[in-house]
Amino acid sequence: MFEIPRGTRDFSPAEMKKRRYVEKKMRETFESFGYQEIQTPTFEYLQLFTAKSGDAIIDEIYSFTDKGGRELALRPELTAPVIRFYVDKLQMEPKPLKLFYFGNCFRYDRPQKGRYREFMQAGCELIGADTPEAIAELIALAYTILKNVGLHQMNLHIGNLTILSMLFEKLKVTHEQQKKIVPLIDKEKFDEVLQLLQDFNVPLDEAHRFLEILQTTDLQIIASFLKDDETMSQEISRLQEILNLLKDSFAINDCQVKMSIVRGLDYYSGLVFEIEAPVLGAEKQICGGGEYELISLFGGRENATAGFALGFDRTILAAELEGHVFPVPSLDYYVIPVNESMLPSAFEITQHLRSKGVTVDIDLLRRGIGKALKYANAINAQQVIIVGPQELHKQSVTVRDMKTGDQKLVPIEKLKEST
Amino acid sequence: MFEIPRGTRDFSPAEMKKRRYVEKKMRETFESFGYQEIQTPTFEYLQLFTAKSGDAIIDEIYSFTDKGGRELALRPELTAPVIRFYVDKLQMEPKPLKLFYFGNCFRYDRPQKGRYREFMQAGCELIGADTPEAIAELIALAYTILKNVGLHQMNLHIGNLTILSMLFEKLKVTHEQQKKIVPLIDKEKFDEVLQLLQDFNVPLDEAHRFLEILQTTDLQIIASFLKDDETMSQEISRLQEILNLLKDSFAINDCQVKMSIVRGLDYYSGLVFEIEAPVLGAEKQICGGGEYELISLFGGRENATAGFALGFDRTILAAELEGHVFPVPSLDYYVIPVNESMLPSAFEITQHLRSKGVTVDIDLLRRGIGKALKYANAINAQQVIIVGPQELHKQSVTVRDMKTGDQKLVPIEKLKEST
Repeated sequence: MFEIPRGTRDFSPAEMKKRRYVEKKMRETFESFGYQEIQTPTFEYLQLFTAKSGDAIIDEIYSFTDKGGRELALRPELTAPVIRFYVDKLQMEPKPLKLFYFGNCFRYDRPQKGRYREFMQAGCELIGADTPEAIAELIALAYTILKNVGLHQMNLHIGNLTILSMLFEKLKVTHEQQKKIVPLIDKEKFDEVLQLLQDFNVPLDEAHRFLEILQTTDLQIIASFLKDDETMSQEISRLQEILNLLKDSFAINDCQVKMSIVRGLDYYSGLVFEIEAPVLGAEKQICGGGEYELISLFGGRENATAGFALGFDRTILAAELEGHVFPVPSLDYYVIPVNESMLPSAFEITQHLRSKGVTVDIDLLRRGIGKALKYANAINAQQVIIVGPQELHKQSVTVRDMKTGDQKLVPIEKLKEST
Repeated sequence: MFEIPRGTRDFSPAEMKKRRYVEKKMRETFESFGYQEIQTPTFEYLQLFTAKSGDAIIDEIYSFTDKGGRELALRPELTAPVIRFYVDKLQMEPKPLKLFYFGNCFRYDRPQKGRYREFMQAGCELIGADTPEAIAELIALAYTILKNVGLHQMNLHIGNLTILSMLFEKLKVTHEQQKKIVPLIDKEKFDEVLQLLQDFNVPLDEAHRFLEILQTTDLQIIASFLKDDETMSQEISRLQEILNLLKDSFAINDCQVKMSIVRGLDYYSGLVFEIEAPVLGAEKQICGGGEYELISLFGGRENATAGFALGFDRTILAAELEGHVFPVPSLDYYVIPVNESMLPSAFEITQHLRSKGVTVDIDLLRRGIGKALKYANAINAQQVIIVGPQELHKQSVTVRDMKTGDQKLVPIEKLKEST
């Protein structure tokens, strides 16, 4: 027997039904916001990802060499490929350009609960617009997608990496030192952050102020600390404007400021945001995004860019843990010809119903009615059509409701019209 | 600038619109026939594919080694993974089991017109049914899918590898000799086939008879040649029954017998079929399938299996060459706030329409009406909603039809109700 590769999954009909439903809801929401779908290859040249994320990412990537000796990599994420596509072929498109996509991504880490080596991401990029309403709409899109998929409990946090970077600069924390502090901020280990700041000779009062900025949800407190710096004040006003828009224009009231959000400090800049599903416990983040700069790194003419990625599996899991019920596989009709000579009539009815878009299966094994009914029940058929000689003589068939067990004689013409 | 890997493709919004439309039509048709969707990983252990197709396939495969030192391969096709999945987890499901799938596949050959290193396939497997009606329905499904996608001209050919194998046996053509003849049969180089048969000391009259069987479309002629052999006669009767069903129950009249179809002789057995789109010229095959035996090779309990694969790209190309017009990206409404103070009302209307499932975009760049209208035209917006202070005073907006240029004042309540 052959095994499935470690850390990957097969999806059964029941799982696919759920996944396609979620994909459809997400696609409809992206499209309702004026976004258009694109797709890129499953693999890229490895250097695309190292250029964006540094050589450290190689350890987490499936890479291999092609016949021309060039290093290829199964994509670990979708933003880099999409920006490569943009720089290569879409720079002349009218702006703003709103793109969304679905794609399988691959990571070479140790398989563990809820983490797979192949996983699906949904995401989008907004290119050429950075007004407060543009960014508010982007955040609202992420939020609306999750609502439309069926999630109810979400925590939306908004931070700002321009402000964080400027604070580091003010505190004279070097780039090397930031590399040590940032992971601690990410994990909200603020005691250790304070310790490190003291090790780096940051004056205690400034360190305390920094920590308060990281921990407060009150934008006014942050503003009061930063009011002397014009650039920071401007970022704060813009953030306030975005928060107001989220509340007033998009009816999102449960949004909180969280300056401790540290996404890739290397290429994110400006607003960043995360959405958590608390029902998931420890691994609760289901969406992350913000404003970033990648286009010029990839050789294009710089333009405002922002986007987000949604974890497909975690979103489904969260909705299910909240009790959301997804559609299950089912069949509208199962047709049973009572004997071989009934086959032509049975197929005629079957094909007619199928042409109307109804899902119909037919007994292909010439079984007795008892066995065929058992099968119809197993595949979750809603109704069974029994085609027998006596009924056929009256241009009718027996239709059985599989839930109630009710049976009735229905004229074939009436059955055809009803669909 | 970073390049896209050789032989792969980026898909623009216009291309994705077409591809998702075709995928939807295919999915709906599979489902209307009672098939259920499944999915397997993008890569498998390499030995899964060599077990099915022999070591020669390694040259055409993207393979790489995982951290455990095991050889992985990007899947070159989908039948082997699906049967692995079946043997592993689905053997206990009620039979017949009808499975369909979409998946990207990968082949490492020289990129050329219409051939890509990453390409999408659609396909299905029918497990546990081999009655004539089961096989006829499978063939009809392939045919119906292509019709529903928009194709009109198709050639459906049906062969039988059991008969072909038995003929080889009768002619005392060894397995090694078959390997030389089969590719020539596949290319319909019948003169060379005759020459080889003579080289292999097949009596001339038998060789001629063999060639007539390969070339005739008349099942009666084939039957008359093979009537002395009981097994072959049975296969012929079954084939006749399937042809009758295709004609009578599935209204497929343009189906031809073609005994020269040679799909993988190693694991196909019984009926095989191919569908061509003549509009494509040389590379005209868009579907291939038939009955085969793989389950026991993969360690499962043998059961009747049949299936087919559809070339996604070629199907789209063929429909387009026939003049079929696919949907293009468009937007229901584009909303233009004439100044910044109109933003709240503009967003209120936008969000209301979106919540009704309508596709709506809004000017995010605070442009003048002229520029915004030009953008609306570029993104193929059907209607534009202009939100201005005078109209708003009358609880109305201006709605402009982008095709006709007609503008009219529409009460906001009426606009909301109309969706």
